[in-house]
Amino acid sequence: MSSDRPKTPKDSHYARLRRQHRSLSAPSPSDRSAERSGGRRHLPPSLPTDGLVRLYGLHTARAALDNPRRTVERVLATRNALHRLGLEETAAHAFSLEIVDPREIDRILGSDAVHQGVLVEAKPLKPKPLAALGETALVVVLDQVTDPHNVGAVIRSGVAFGAGALVTTARHSPQESGVLAKSASGALEHIDLIEVRNLADALGELHKAGFQTIGLDSDAPAELEKSFAGTRIALVLGAEGKGLRQKSRETVDTLARLDMPGAIRSLNVSNAAAIALYAARRHLNL
Amino acid sequence: MSSDRPKTPKDSHYARLRRQHRSLSAPSPSDRSAERSGGRRHLPPSLPTDGLVRLYGLHTARAALDNPRRTVERVLATRNALHRLGLEETAAHAFSLEIVDPREIDRILGSDAVHQGVLVEAKPLKPKPLAALGETALVVVLDQVTDPHNVGAVIRSGVAFGAGALVTTARHSPQESGVLAKSASGALEHIDLIEVRNLADALGELHKAGFQTIGLDSDAPAELEKSFAGTRIALVLGAEGKGLRQKSRETVDTLARLDMPGAIRSLNVSNAAAIALYAARRHLNL
Repeated sequence: MSSDRPKTPKDSHYARLRRQHRSLSAPSPSDRSAERSGGRRHLPPSLPTDGLVRLYGLHTARAALDNPRRTVERVLATRNALHRLGLEETAAHAFSLEIVDPREIDRILGSDAVHQGVLVEAKPLKPKPLAALGETALVVVLDQVTDPHNVGAVIRSGVAFGAGALVTTARHSPQESGVLAKSASGALEHIDLIEVRNLADALGELHKAGFQTIGLDSDAPAELEKSFAGTRIALVLGAEGKGLRQKSRETVDTLARLDMPGAIRSLNVSNAAAIALYAARRHLNL
Repeated sequence: MSSDRPKTPKDSHYARLRRQHRSLSAPSPSDRSAERSGGRRHLPPSLPTDGLVRLYGLHTARAALDNPRRTVERVLATRNALHRLGLEETAAHAFSLEIVDPREIDRILGSDAVHQGVLVEAKPLKPKPLAALGETALVVVLDQVTDPHNVGAVIRSGVAFGAGALVTTARHSPQESGVLAKSASGALEHIDLIEVRNLADALGELHKAGFQTIGLDSDAPAELEKSFAGTRIALVLGAEGKGLRQKSRETVDTLARLDMPGAIRSLNVSNAAAIALYAARRHLNL
């Protein structure tokens, strides 16, 4: 996307910084396997093989237990966490409940998970098709954002600003996981997860359903705040470094940028999403 | 902070959600040690004992090498990373340069660090006193935000939106570290780090220097966008769950909230900072 703004010296300076940033962001073939294995090494020692997700942390556990759409199979908790969750040890529960030592949860999750003394083993939420999208005026669409921390943080901001659904592709998106749920801090239970095969088709469907589909792109000619037009907004964001895929760029109704005057013109994707959601909420007056 | 908004049923509903969220956020005494040890376990196996910081990742390394204020002692890099950084193996450098296998860097940083084949060992940047604050119109003040990922992400958004300085307390703030620098994605080299002993005193000094000090508080009566008044803005944010300390609340010129209509009214602190910075930049027309 070349912009039609005049090429001032400032623009050229930023263009150079952007190019530099991009060339460093795109993994080279030989680094890619190292990065992948770096990601793989984040996985806890005990991997779920039972089709269950392991949710941990007090907010995340509380939200999962409160979600009628969530099937909880087993809860491991310290006596203290149990008390803070307002669960009674002796009451009848729809799940099995075990009082454990924190180290028992460490053993299952790996020692990096800040579990606050609670682990909930539950069935994953079943992703919905796009046809199941309800009356919401605001949705977030992620184009191959793969980092579960970022996707979780986007869900959290999405729910805070009233987004009713997160649309992702079935491939190149993280599965529901403890890390994603923890980053969402309970918000995972409050949003519809919609999985599509083909993002461009989904953007077309959203357009037909009355959404203005807005792709965030740092080179876009229009500023985000001046781009809002619809009464339903779908915000489309790509992965850091890569940005939106060409096909997504061509399919959205509008490409818009966030103006950044600083030396580095690049945001973490969850921060970019939070800003776009905030601005969209103001436009929609949610 | 009780608000003077009318107590509608919606308000009460949110007030309940907020209380619930807070009570789950504040660590109980017995969980605290577990959380601390959780944090400690994130540290790499080989801790710096030489007073150097270990910076890794291509953006972070590039920015450190480009920063004239940064003293680099040693660079370990794969041949590929060296090429991508535009460094010549045979050229004369002010630092020692070693071509290594990625596993050598893994061994130093621990296997969780996504280092992209480069490790820069450098002297930490010397934090400045508040008196050294330059002509910047926008600063971020963090009130005991301790997570280095969050502080790094705040620095990244701060630089993107033109903030000239990050003000933190000398205690209860993370030291400069590889994790913080990696989250800042190069931005650490583009902002003044200012350390103060007493945050309330610092807020007073900023006020005297012509800054409107604005504390973010979800219970504040005024919305952020309607609160901006000054030509210099200092955005003050507290840690997640705890928020601003009482003394900080009392000392800022203005308390302001971000409106969140959703079921969960709580943002990751770096996302809240990104939104506030974005809005402040628009107000200041940077």
